[in-house]
Amino acid sequence: MASCNIGVLLALAYDGVAFHGFARQPGLPTIAGQLVDALATIDQQITEVRGTSRTDAGVHALDQRVAFDTSLDLPSAAWLAKLNRRLPNTIAVQSVARVAPGYAPRFHAVRKTYRYQVLCCPARDPLQEGRVWHVPSLSANELVRVATSALPTLVGTHDFEGFRSARDQRISSVRTIERIEVLRPLEDERLVFIEITGNGFLYNMVRIIIGTTVDAARGRAKVDALQRTLVSKDRRTAGITAPPQGLYLAHVELDDDP
Amino acid sequence: MASCNIGVLLALAYDGVAFHGFARQPGLPTIAGQLVDALATIDQQITEVRGTSRTDAGVHALDQRVAFDTSLDLPSAAWLAKLNRRLPNTIAVQSVARVAPGYAPRFHAVRKTYRYQVLCCPARDPLQEGRVWHVPSLSANELVRVATSALPTLVGTHDFEGFRSARDQRISSVRTIERIEVLRPLEDERLVFIEITGNGFLYNMVRIIIGTTVDAARGRAKVDALQRTLVSKDRRTAGITAPPQGLYLAHVELDDDP
Repeated sequence: MASCNIGVLLALAYDGVAFHGFARQPGLPTIAGQLVDALATIDQQITEVRGTSRTDAGVHALDQRVAFDTSLDLPSAAWLAKLNRRLPNTIAVQSVARVAPGYAPRFHAVRKTYRYQVLCCPARDPLQEGRVWHVPSLSANELVRVATSALPTLVGTHDFEGFRSARDQRISSVRTIERIEVLRPLEDERLVFIEITGNGFLYNMVRIIIGTTVDAARGRAKVDALQRTLVSKDRRTAGITAPPQGLYLAHVELDDDP
Repeated sequence: MASCNIGVLLALAYDGVAFHGFARQPGLPTIAGQLVDALATIDQQITEVRGTSRTDAGVHALDQRVAFDTSLDLPSAAWLAKLNRRLPNTIAVQSVARVAPGYAPRFHAVRKTYRYQVLCCPARDPLQEGRVWHVPSLSANELVRVATSALPTLVGTHDFEGFRSARDQRISSVRTIERIEVLRPLEDERLVFIEITGNGFLYNMVRIIIGTTVDAARGRAKVDALQRTLVSKDRRTAGITAPPQGLYLAHVELDDDP
């Protein structure tokens, strides 16, 4: 049996709606589980993959990075074609690069960008189902107004203790947010995109930031709830946790990006 | 039993992927079938609806118009809320208006706009699955170049005989295209949108126009295939019929729009 002396790094996109998140869970459909199943039909020695972010159930990715080891010396284009034929329609490899065996992309991720999509209109939109947070009672203009005024307060290095789920196990809650941008796609005035770039994120951090912003915009939280939560470090002064289906892992930057 | 003396007109949006088109078919899931089922739980006298366009299996709508008669005198907001609670996630009423009983919107449609979405990139995109035609071998720039140069030739009143399916039963194949626009969303350079507005369309007409344009752009049809087909009136000089999942009934204009 050949040793797995080749490392392969994938950029993966997926629609998270039908999956119980990235990380493998016995008996449940997960992104990593589907990927390992597809890889094992190409090289049965492959039994595990190493991801960058453990995205939750329902969360999407445009650029998740995943590495695995193999003894199969295939060109990148062959990995891409073979995997995309085997993966379900809701998961696809976007690009393939060669890395050292044992490469763990999460230790090389220096910067991640998440995008959150909010749909502001009275009626449901079936073509955005599972892709956005639909907030029927809020106008896009009002959300943009509150978001552009309140979100910049989070940029910089802060203790984000008040913006993490009680399930978060990490020791330090200090993180650096480098950039927060509020975007409106020209094609659809009902949509608001909020992009957050940072060196790392606590569990549910983006979804609590977005939930607090939306709650402030629709009058369910104080206008300065983001600032208050940053100071109080108390989850209870923040708003709700925004639902997973509006969240996208948009980009991962590695220190040695191939 | 009260007589159905109230007419109601709906603007409907739907994701067509899971349906066998708009028109009811026994034993198959269709848009009209789902709508009648939902309406009958509100007023059991409702047994039929009158649509504007019989969209095909897999085709989407942002603004389909559908009318029905009822004896139930409900405010528009109540119809909207009740229907959207009962309809599947993939169908939603966008707005509701009162019309005369027996109103048939297809006889009032003076102008329709279809949008077609093409995704030009090597790898599949799971987040665009079922929403676009993925053409892996074509660059968006090349498609835009060919489309903007060739499509204007179709604007005006012409005999579109060469651009209809053999299944089309209509007597006249003369139609007027008022506007064709090639759009690129700023947020995603891989996408090309083509919008066509006209007073009416033959069966598969938009999909044959798009298929011919894409085939010309990727070298599978002559560069002047659109012009040739307009002159020859022969379906065989056109390209393929583009697949349904990229097509959206984007807007219907009624002569008496409420």
